[in-house]
Parts: sequence; C-alpha cells; structure tokens
Amino acid sequence: MEELKMRKIGIIGLGHVGATIAYTLVTKGIADELVIIDTNDDKTTAEEYDLRDTLARLDTFTKIIPQDYDSLSNADVVITAFGNIDSIKMDGDRFGELNFNTAAVEEVAANLKTSGFNGVLINISNPCDVVTTLLQQQTGLSKAQVFGTGTFLDTARMQRAVGQALHEDPKNVSGYVLGEHGESQYTAWSTVEVKGHPITKLAEEKGLDLTSFDQQARRGGWLVFSGKHYTCYAIATCAIKLAQAVLSDARLACPTSVYLEEYGHYIGYPAVVGRKGIIEVNSISLPIEEKAQLDNSAKIIKEKLNK
Amino acid sequence: MEELKMRKIGIIGLGHVGATIAYTLVTKGIADELVIIDTNDDKTTAEEYDLRDTLARLDTFTKIIPQDYDSLSNADVVITAFGNIDSIKMDGDRFGELNFNTAAVEEVAANLKTSGFNGVLINISNPCDVVTTLLQQQTGLSKAQVFGTGTFLDTARMQRAVGQALHEDPKNVSGYVLGEHGESQYTAWSTVEVKGHPITKLAEEKGLDLTSFDQQARRGGWLVFSGKHYTCYAIATCAIKLAQAVLSDARLACPTSVYLEEYGHYIGYPAVVGRKGIIEVNSISLPIEEKAQLDNSAKIIKEKLNK
Amino acid sequence: MEELKMRKIGIIGLGHVGATIAYTLVTKGIADELVIIDTNDDKTTAEEYDLRDTLARLDTFTKIIPQDYDSLSNADVVITAFGNIDSIKMDGDRFGELNFNTAAVEEVAANLKTSGFNGVLINISNPCDVVTTLLQQQTGLSKAQVFGTGTFLDTARMQRAVGQALHEDPKNVSGYVLGEHGESQYTAWSTVEVKGHPITKLAEEKGLDLTSFDQQARRGGWLVFSGKHYTCYAIATCAIKLAQAVLSDARLACPTSVYLEEYGHYIGYPAVVGRKGIIEVNSISLPIEEKAQLDNSAKIIKEKLNK
Amino acid sequence: MEELKMRKIGIIGLGHVGATIAYTLVTKGIADELVIIDTNDDKTTAEEYDLRDTLARLDTFTKIIPQDYDSLSNADVVITAFGNIDSIKMDGDRFGELNFNTAAVEEVAANLKTSGFNGVLINISNPCDVVTTLLQQQTGLSKAQVFGTGTFLDTARMQRAVGQALHEDPKNVSGYVLGEHGESQYTAWSTVEVKGHPITKLAEEKGLDLTSFDQQARRGGWLVFSGKHYTCYAIATCAIKLAQAVLSDARLACPTSVYLEEYGHYIGYPAVVGRKGIIEVNSISLPIEEKAQLDNSAKIIKEKLNK
Repeated sequence: MEELKMRKIGIIGLGHVGATIAYTLVTKGIADELVIIDTNDDKTTAEEYDLRDTLARLDTFTKIIPQDYDSLSNADVVITAFGNIDSIKMDGDRFGELNFNTAAVEEVAANLKTSGFNGVLINISNPCDVVTTLLQQQTGLSKAQVFGTGTFLDTARMQRAVGQALHEDPKNVSGYVLGEHGESQYTAWSTVEVKGHPITKLAEEKGLDLTSFDQQARRGGWLVFSGKHYTCYAIATCAIKLAQAVLSDARLACPTSVYLEEYGHYIGYPAVVGRKGIIEVNSISLPIEEKAQLDNSAKIIKEKLNK
Repeated sequence: MEELKMRKIGIIGLGHVGATIAYTLVTKGIADELVIIDTNDDKTTAEEYDLRDTLARLDTFTKIIPQDYDSLSNADVVITAFGNIDSIKMDGDRFGELNFNTAAVEEVAANLKTSGFNGVLINISNPCDVVTTLLQQQTGLSKAQVFGTGTFLDTARMQRAVGQALHEDPKNVSGYVLGEHGESQYTAWSTVEVKGHPITKLAEEKGLDLTSFDQQARRGGWLVFSGKHYTCYAIATCAIKLAQAVLSDARLACPTSVYLEEYGHYIGYPAVVGRKGIIEVNSISLPIEEKAQLDNSAKIIKEKLNK
Repeated sequence: MEELKMRKIGIIGLGHVGATIAYTLVTKGIADELVIIDTNDDKTTAEEYDLRDTLARLDTFTKIIPQDYDSLSNADVVITAFGNIDSIKMDGDRFGELNFNTAAVEEVAANLKTSGFNGVLINISNPCDVVTTLLQQQTGLSKAQVFGTGTFLDTARMQRAVGQALHEDPKNVSGYVLGEHGESQYTAWSTVEVKGHPITKLAEEKGLDLTSFDQQARRGGWLVFSGKHYTCYAIATCAIKLAQAVLSDARLACPTSVYLEEYGHYIGYPAVVGRKGIIEVNSISLPIEEKAQLDNSAKIIKEKLNK
Repeated sequence: MEELKMRKIGIIGLGHVGATIAYTLVTKGIADELVIIDTNDDKTTAEEYDLRDTLARLDTFTKIIPQDYDSLSNADVVITAFGNIDSIKMDGDRFGELNFNTAAVEEVAANLKTSGFNGVLINISNPCDVVTTLLQQQTGLSKAQVFGTGTFLDTARMQRAVGQALHEDPKNVSGYVLGEHGESQYTAWSTVEVKGHPITKLAEEKGLDLTSFDQQARRGGWLVFSGKHYTCYAIATCAIKLAQAVLSDARLACPTSVYLEEYGHYIGYPAVVGRKGIIEVNSISLPIEEKAQLDNSAKIIKEKLNK
C-alpha cells in the first residue's frame, strides 16, 4: 500500500496571523498535516508545542511538522503570512512592510520552488496585492494557483459596518470592497445589497452616509491595530475560508486579490475559488465612477510594484 | 414572550489566553453571547472589532458584549484569565504573578458579586490554585461553582510527552498530573496507562525514564513561553473543554483545581465537571509516596496563600 | 445555585425527518437537552437508545428526554415534524397529509399549551403553511413565535437546480421561491442572482429555460420521494439552520412560512429569523406577474384552510 | 497543475446505515468527494438529491458522485454497509443476513478490485467478522487495510449501559467488549474502569450485576431494532470515528474487528487505527475465563466462515 495523501496545509510566517491560522486549522480539525515555517526557530518550536499540547483535549488529530520546506512538495495549500509588524507605522499604510517583505518574497519563493510545491498559494503578507504579484512571478506557479486575501477582509469589515448601523447580521449584507488591500480600496456601492435591497436605495430612504461605512471598512483594521498592535482573528478567518474552498473545490464566489490581465498585476476583485485556485474571474459591470476608482487603485499598486 | 436566555459566557482578562478563548468561542460557534472584559479599554475594543469582523465569514453568530459586568448576571460561565505576563520571570515560577493577581482578584470578585453572577466560574489566572481559592472566598460562590484549570493542562502536556516518546496519540495516554499548577506538581504514575497498559510496567519492559516525562509536563509551558513569551493555545483548549462540560452537563471526569476539604484550599485533583461546576471529587487511592507528593504540593500552595 | 437553563430543543414527531433532526442535533452537539416525542412509544425508545449509544463516540454530550411534554416548559425551540407518510399519494401533493395532520395539530397544540412552552415553534408538518397557521391559532403563541420551514427548502432546491445547470455552488445562487410549500409555489425570478448577476439577464444571454429550474425546485422532493419513499436530509438541514438562527439570535434573512397580514395566514415569503422567531417580514417589490403568482398561491392555501 | 487529490470516501450500500453515514459526512463537511453506490439506482438518485439539496444550507461543500466504482480508484476510505435488512429475523442473530451478504461480498470485492481501490476498507455489513474476513480475502487488500466496526459499537453500548446505571457520562467508562459482533460477544470486565476505578471492585462494593450490563450491550441493538426496524445512528457514528482516524492518521486505540493470526480470521479485539488501517493489534492479558470466552467466540465465527 503506497503512502496515501492527507489534507496537508503549510503556513509560512508565524506572527500573530500565521499562528492563529495554525491554531484554527488544528482546533477545528481542518488540517491532517500542518507544516509551520518561520525564520525564528524558537518561535516555531514554541508554536509547535503549544499546538501539540492541545491534542489530548481535541477530538481530532493533526500532525505538526515544523521548519520543513521539503514537506510542502505535496501540500494542498500554502498560506504565506510573513511580515515584520514592527515596520508598520501608525500612518495607516500597509506599504510600511514593503521593503521588508520584498526581500522575504525572494527567499520564500525560492524555497517553495525548490520544495516542488505545486498546490494553491494563498498570500496574506502585505502589501497584499504587490506581494501576491511578486510571489506568482517568482514561484513560477500559475496565475490561477496564486491569489491573495486582498479585499475579502475589507469586504467583511464593510459588511460589519453596514450591519452594525442597520442592526443586521453582516451576512445579510452582500457586495464588494474592491481594489488595493490598502488605502486606495473602495466599496463598490452599486454591488451592495441588504437582504436583497440595493443599499443606494436604502441610503436615500434612510439618509445613510455611505462614505462613513466605506471609511469604517478601510480604517477598521487600524482600530484593531491601535488597540492590540496587530490584527489576527478576522484575517485568519478569511484565509481559512478561502483554504477550505480550495480543499473541497467549493467554487466560492468572493472578492480576493486576483490577477487581472487589464492591469497586469493582482488586485481585489470578484472571483471564484476552487481546487485549482482561481477558477474564474467574475467580471462585473461597474458604473463609470466605480470603474475609475478601480483604475486609480490599480495605478497605485502598479507604482509600488515598480519601486 | 419573555426574553429567553441564550448561551452566555464571560471572559475577564483579554491577554493572549483570554483573547484566544474569546476567538475560539466565536469561531466554533460555542457562545451565543460573549461578554469580554479587560482593564484596558482600547485592547477590549480591538478584540471586539477583530471578532466582529469575523462574523461575515462564519456560519454561526455570536453577540459580542464589551466591558459590561452587569451583563454577567445571567451568564452560564465566566472564565477568569487576568494577569500580568510581564511580571513572570523566566525562573519558571508561576508565582511571579502572585502580587499582581492578588490585587486583581479583589476587584474582579467584587465586580462579579455586584453583577449578581451565579453561574460557574473557571479560573485560569496564576498562581491557579491560590487565585481560585481566593476567588471562591471573595465571590461568595459555592465551592462547586468555582474551580480552576489547574493540572488539566499539565496532564495534557504529560500525555503529549509520553505519547511523543511512544509514538502514540496523546489520547491513548490516560492518568493524572496532580497537585499545584506550578513547580511542585507531579505525575501520579500509578494512575497512568497507555492504551490500557500500566505505564510502570511498560517503563520496566522498555527502560523508559518516567522522570523525564514528568519534567516535560512541568517544564512544557516554559519551552513554549521561552519561544513566544506567553502560552495560549493549549490552556485555551483546556478551559473551553471545561466550559463545554458545564454548558452541556457532560459529567466530564478530569483533573482540575478543585477544593479539597483535607487541605482547606484548591489543588489539582481528579473531579467530575457538569452544569453546576464540580459535581464530584473523584477520590483515588494513591501509593504512599504519591500521596506524600500531594501533601507536599498542598503545603506549598498553603504557604503562598498565607502570604 | 438555582438550576441554570441549558440549550433545550424539542422535536414532536419522530418519522424520518424528526429522527434525522434529533440525530443531527446530537451528533453536532447543538442541543444540550433534547426532548423527543412521538405517538409511538416503541419508536421513541428506539430512537432514544440509538442516540444514547452514540454518546461514547462523540466529543459532545446531549441529554435525551423521551416522551415528556412537561419538559418543554422551558425549551428554547420546538420543531414539529409529525405526519403520516403513508397518506401521501404519489400524485405529488403535500395536501395528502391534510386530514391526518389536522387532527394531530389539535393534540399537539393542546399538549404544548398545557406544558407552558413559550419558546419558538418551527413547523415542518405538511401541508406546511396550513399546519403552521393552525398551530399558531391553537397554541396561542404569537405570530412571531411560530413559523414554518415553508419554501426555505424549495429555495434550496432551486439553488441546487440552477447551480447544477450552471456549474456553480448552490450558495452562489441567491433569491427566493415563494408561496405555498406545495404545488402552487413558484420561483420569483426577479429576485434570483448568480454571483451577483440577475438570472433573467443570464437566461437571455445563454438561452436558459427558467421554467425547467422552477419545475425542478417544485418536483425536486418527488424525485427523492420516489426513490426512497420519504425525504429527510435537506428538510432536516433547513430546519436546523432555522433553529440555530433562533438559538443565537442570528437575524438570518431567508424565506420561511411566515404570517402575512395581507392574506391572514402563513405563506412562504422572505423574513428575518432571530431569538424571538420572526423578527421582521422582509417586504420585497415584486413585478406584477410575480405578485399575482403569490396571490394565487395564497388563495390555494386559504381554500385548504377553510376545509 | 496536476489534479490534486481531495478527501474522498466511498460508501457501498445505501440502506439506513449507509445513507446516514453519507449524510453525516456531508453535513459535517468531512468528505470533499463522496462516492455513493447501491444496487438500487432509484434509491441512489434519491439519496444523491436529498444530499445535494442540503448544500445551499451548509457552510461546507461535498461533491456527490453516484454509482461510480471507477471513481474509487483513488479513494482514501471505502465503507461497506450493504445488506438485506428484511432477512434479519427477530431472533436476534446478525447471521440472518449471512447468505444474502456472502453473495454480495463477491460482487463488491470484484468491483473494488477492478476499480483499483487501494485505500482502507471499513466493513459494517453483517455478520461483521465473517464478511470482513471474506472481503479481505476477495479484494486482495492487505489485512491492515481491511477491518470491521465489530465490537466498537457493542463497546459503546456497554459504556452507555454502565454509564446509565451509575449516572456517568459513557465516556467515563473505559474497557472492551470483545469477540464476535453477534451473540457470542462478551464484556471483558477485567478491562473495564469507571473514572479510573476497576468496575469489578465497584461491583463488589455497590452490588452491581455486571451480567445485566453485558446483556444490555449484547441486546442493545435489538431494543432499537424492535422499535424502528433497523439501527443506524450509533453504528454510523462508530464507522465515521474510525474513518476519521484513518483520514488523519490519528492512531486511535479502540476495539474493532481485526485479523488475529491466532484464529485465522477477523474478530473484535483492541487495535490501533491510522492512515494505513490497522497499525497495530493491541495485545492485552486476559484472565483465563475471559480468554476462554474469546476462544469460544472465535470458534463460532470460524464455524460460520466454514459454511
């Protein structure tokens, strides 16, 4: 009997986000094998044992494999969450991590290539759209196989902000935040509905200030960041939902950081996620002014890419 | 129609442990209402929003209620996880937090009393046995209603250490670590079995060094602590398993920090956990030398209580 | 310490649907206390023991309480799933069970009233809209506290049919089947979107035959029924999702059998479900022909009510 | 990018047990791909659609593949649950299905062989130990790759019976029912402990009648059978726990129907279950009279095998 494959997930970067993802994959029994990798050996050992010590209290089992790129050769999904939180200034720009992470991309991509990894790569590292673009270029994986969490998180925050204002479950709010996972992101209000009703109509009727919701989505992370010096739970939850869609070929329709031919790089836009990564870009018709916002956001990503 | 009660859990103290518990109760849909309380308002707001931002991506719903002791009046369970991690010295003694937490107990107990809380209180704050004893005294809740995580965590670490050495799932290892959740704890090897076989017999046959496993259970936390400066996942998992046993009246048999008449304070010992807290102390016959170790550990807890 | 309430759910009627719901609530650890009631004592005992025998293999605990209406006095939710499957003719009309179930309603409603039950009642028994109307009238519970699964199931079938034809996850299909949970139901195509795109537009572009999807939603149950002589999994899944929305006050927006003032009885229509049952009727603007279909369906329910 | 494997499970036989397993694997999101096979095409289509109709209401996705033996070539686990419930007489002997199932084994084994299936085969079909023995012989899979649920279910029933009598969670009861999954099974009381205390000692102290518990384990299935004409929930739960242990290489220690060299066939005995099936037979020392009971039970299985 040959060695049969199990559900194997790798996490590269064990800061608060990577560690939270590792913990969640173990505590929910989602991963059968979990490869955890970080530049800090002691930190990795610490996370390894904090996770192993949970196993006697869980009904599921996960094999924890520390610091082993080779083991990623047959992984289903790798999630990149490297970064240097200390390099983020409180000016609210996720590009603070750019220099640090550009260097990290080269190392991670080279290691992934050497490992023979050929699954789906989900990037969280910031600036998300830039790093995702670089990871795709440098790993040699296809554009379908690589994508970023992008505005999937910002959309969740917009759903929360709108839901909170209207006393609704965030899941009753549909629609998209598009563009850069960064300051130039924007809510495409033409796509947003609350329980099936266009929000633009509700806004008129109830005198809602949509720009404040947009601001809450954009600045939501900084509210969290300023109180705890990092954010982890919402972003981890987004990444895991995407990973599960890959594992079960769920064809999840959602905004992510996806490669658009039109711009020549990754950017937050609706897509469909399945076993092979991005199954489909879900093209939508945007009003002229919302399309202009997307173009503008793409331009900003491009500029940073060119640095 | 009167307001019907929901599953309500409170967490007091939002350090890494408390925040991890909050996240887990939300991401697994265990709590319907979650009250989160910390001395730091900004930290509480940050956790509140990092959790709210997950809701659009989860299939379950939890209402997050920040900084509201009054709301605990009809809570089912409160978990105390306050502490000052910076006061822990790397000398490996959980009593480093004693002075800080003794003061915190007074405030927390007074606030709980005022709130009218009458559910089950599960304490994690260290030194666990001392703080649990003080919380019971000062809240006026019954000895059944209050207990600590105690050696439930250390037992998980012993199971992990033995399992790792013998290539076994930790759940195939049964038995107890007893006494103080601290340096004087010990594994009661007479109670430990591996897949139904007494470990003392296996140790003879295979030449196992049980003292090294005992050491790994005792020092396991410090391995994690030294790499990440705190521990959170295993302790959170233990606390949640205890909370679930309370919520569903599961009659879970396990070691916890429980009040023993013989010593007049809380100490790690086998018990049964259900809807009313400690349903039963599960008295076991220990060999003379293991009973002596328990007496010794109790003496150490007593001394610290008397300070 | 007073007896603290646990999550308690009652099921009345242990045919395939009721038993599947009972099993799911136990195997997923959703209910802490589960009251199961049926007119057949032996069947109830059989289900009780088949469920109790799972407990040694599950990580959660549920207390099973057989044949005890009194115990429903403090239940959170009761699900009615009584019926006489043998009375359904293969003519595809759920009204086959009408005479049988009208008699059952009287008994069940009287028993619920005597028990003092004051939670939320979710009815599955067919004809769903008629039985739900009668249960509300005879239990004396408010119109918010009582609702039926109605077209929540038919909508799931429409989503499946559309998803299957377009190679989409059913969850990428939004919108409503409205009206009677029966032959006069219809898909309100004006409300249906696929990944945010109106299906009417897709239908034009791709030459889709929407009437066949509508037929598949309506006849979907009979495909299942003709192969296994009952349906259980999809309806149980719908009922449980509604029950969970009640338990956690989730404000779930979905079509259910809800009381509409305009018609004076229950009918499948969009609503919002929370801790108190129907929190809100989600009024939507329908094109004239879709509104006429709703009126027609209401008329048919009314006629059967008047019998 | 090559087609990456997903968690694939096959179920052969869609009676109440097989269908319940299929439903559970879908509703808990355990299987990514689920192959369902039955001799009755209409029944299979009915189950397929009853399951597909759940997908719009679940947070997970499972691909349902009906009637496709070829698709099992890369399945991780196949569960056999074929049988003819009508051939079981109420005399309480699971051997009633022997003739029917012997014929079925030949067909199933031949089809599995042709498919190229090389994963782990978990058999439920009765008489379990006989059918498991035949399936191993006829599929050509190794003795590790094939095992049966055997007394894993009867042990759960013994735990329930003892737990019920002593007001304990069944999980507080450890130990084994051994031998045939049939009338000659027996509880090895020397192995049974309640919260760590040997039950033989408790029985003396409290005057417990252990033979009645033994009887309840053995006859437990018939109590359920007589009320609902089949049993499904407990056996499905057992089979799924075993399948999950295989999928995650959990090294679950438990009694199953396992091949013992000593007897030359399968029989209920302690083992360890992991990714390759039976990782290890967990040999235990039994008192002379309990060993004699095992020998006797093996003799009975042997006789039926020789028919």
